[in-house]
Amino acid sequence: MNNGRTASSPVGLHRVLEPSGVLPQAALRLDASPRLWPDEVRIAIERLNLDAASFRQLSLAHGGDGAAVRTSVLGMIRTSGKMHNPVTGSGGMLVGTVEEVGPESTLGLSVGERVATLVSLTLTPLVVTDGLIGWDGRAEQVPATGHAILFGRSIAARLPDDLPTSLALAVLDVCGAPALTARVVRNRVDGGAVPSVAVIGAAGKSGSLALSAARRAGAGRLVGVVLIESEAAALRAADLADEIVLADARDPVALAQAIGKPVDVTVVCVDVPGCEGGAILSTAAGGTVVFFSMATSFTAAALGAEGLAADVTMLVGNGFVPGHADLALQLIREDAGVRRLFTQRLGLP
Amino acid sequence: MNNGRTASSPVGLHRVLEPSGVLPQAALRLDASPRLWPDEVRIAIERLNLDAASFRQLSLAHGGDGAAVRTSVLGMIRTSGKMHNPVTGSGGMLVGTVEEVGPESTLGLSVGERVATLVSLTLTPLVVTDGLIGWDGRAEQVPATGHAILFGRSIAARLPDDLPTSLALAVLDVCGAPALTARVVRNRVDGGAVPSVAVIGAAGKSGSLALSAARRAGAGRLVGVVLIESEAAALRAADLADEIVLADARDPVALAQAIGKPVDVTVVCVDVPGCEGGAILSTAAGGTVVFFSMATSFTAAALGAEGLAADVTMLVGNGFVPGHADLALQLIREDAGVRRLFTQRLGLP
Repeated sequence: MNNGRTASSPVGLHRVLEPSGVLPQAALRLDASPRLWPDEVRIAIERLNLDAASFRQLSLAHGGDGAAVRTSVLGMIRTSGKMHNPVTGSGGMLVGTVEEVGPESTLGLSVGERVATLVSLTLTPLVVTDGLIGWDGRAEQVPATGHAILFGRSIAARLPDDLPTSLALAVLDVCGAPALTARVVRNRVDGGAVPSVAVIGAAGKSGSLALSAARRAGAGRLVGVVLIESEAAALRAADLADEIVLADARDPVALAQAIGKPVDVTVVCVDVPGCEGGAILSTAAGGTVVFFSMATSFTAAALGAEGLAADVTMLVGNGFVPGHADLALQLIREDAGVRRLFTQRLGLP
Repeated sequence: MNNGRTASSPVGLHRVLEPSGVLPQAALRLDASPRLWPDEVRIAIERLNLDAASFRQLSLAHGGDGAAVRTSVLGMIRTSGKMHNPVTGSGGMLVGTVEEVGPESTLGLSVGERVATLVSLTLTPLVVTDGLIGWDGRAEQVPATGHAILFGRSIAARLPDDLPTSLALAVLDVCGAPALTARVVRNRVDGGAVPSVAVIGAAGKSGSLALSAARRAGAGRLVGVVLIESEAAALRAADLADEIVLADARDPVALAQAIGKPVDVTVVCVDVPGCEGGAILSTAAGGTVVFFSMATSFTAAALGAEGLAADVTMLVGNGFVPGHADLALQLIREDAGVRRLFTQRLGLP
């Protein structure tokens, strides 16, 4: 290997070429060579799924010229050894087949398995060998040939045989939300409580899975908050909540009134800014707010709780919880209501 | 009362004049009239402590012209019924004496007590009656006459007789950090563990109090991380940590190497951006990161943990924990090391 290291790092430091010492996500250039370190796994790639924000930015920057977008993506991958859009800071995920497993890998993968990576492409060493010839540059889904490297400490999920790939990917994309919701609810159940739970943005992908996970983890009263009546109707048909209420989550007073008696656990799954105050106000003293929205403002949450003298625990929604992929796939298999919401959204039969 | 309500709201909705329905912090104008609703408390003000960022902005905007700064602050208070700098979004706190306590107030305050408010001035109804004549507009401390209103659900701390006011205020300003740190450590101790704890920014106000609180709550190995040798020397003299290490918290690899064996609880008290990855990398699986820095990026924390496949609980540092003021004042009284750090910083004898 070409950076003088004699041992690999589980987080991939040994693949960082420039600047030295940073984590792979912060690196400008990764060593994406195919030869494995003992704890690594190589994936033969099949498809890249560009992050939606990244694809939109590239498309706009090139005036919708697909060929130019393709050239730009190829250039980024060649230059940096990963797919990391420097403007949006985002990458995406990939689908492929396990090609080689290092003898010390602990990811539990076997050669020939079809997997999706659950860590960002912004930190995944990547080589494309087909010039992305099968992609017209006009969609986020990028057919591709080449390879990617998984580090010792990484995350990939086996793609199940029994689910359409697009459905599995949509579920895996948000699988942290149901897992963390389940953990928070279960901790309270283990403490002898039957916690009430409100999910804000309950008809969306992460929200519907969070509701389903909360019920299975032993939640009591389950409130689904949605913005508009069509979402309420879809959620009603899915039978995921005890109460379905309409409210604009950016209006703290309206949200708290819609939810009524404050709940023990509030899960924020709606991707608009300004939902912090309402979530805090809707949560009982001693309760927990889990923020999954990437639009969450750290300072609004911290100062909002202080301003309301609210003794609530506020969690940053970590996208990784052990077992998160399996749990989410299990929910989509077993909960017909969640499954219907997903298939409708994806336009699947 | 002039907005047609017949009952007060514990979070002050009944004092919001414009726009209707928002929380007092988001309001453009509050009713600051002195007559109390049954659950309120009126404070005769003695001094406003403007938020540092707010004062700096005002001073710059007026080219250091103190009289113009004073006119500007007076105008804001008159127009909005509170001290809310619209540019910085911040307010400050105030010191005064309890003048009247509504019969249904649950804050536990008595007439004549000297208190500091621990909720932001951006949500506190405020009237100034002396034209701020005692203030030259050149410092954050503003002598003032007038009154302020505390809502049913609010926070004020009695100023202790045995501590200089400036010391008590400095402690109360950061009192959420030791309280939440103590709670996180105690929860683990109650579960049978002796958690190791690292505090990043350990020589500062919140950091030193967090270290002291962690030790008293039953922490095991206690690591203080500072940036420069003079801080290390001060922290060493204060005897607050088992290990004192130098590291730039923005460098994840350097931080994790300096801390060594990952800790169970990491407390981030350093007010610079970019410390999320290092804090996550320094925390053991199953551990907790408490982010107290207002420079924390929500997305950097969420995506950083996912990218590292780090099963860590990440808490938004809520400035309110019941009993936080009493705990912090107790620490400053009883822990000579913390006290010395504070008095040196404040230039007290």
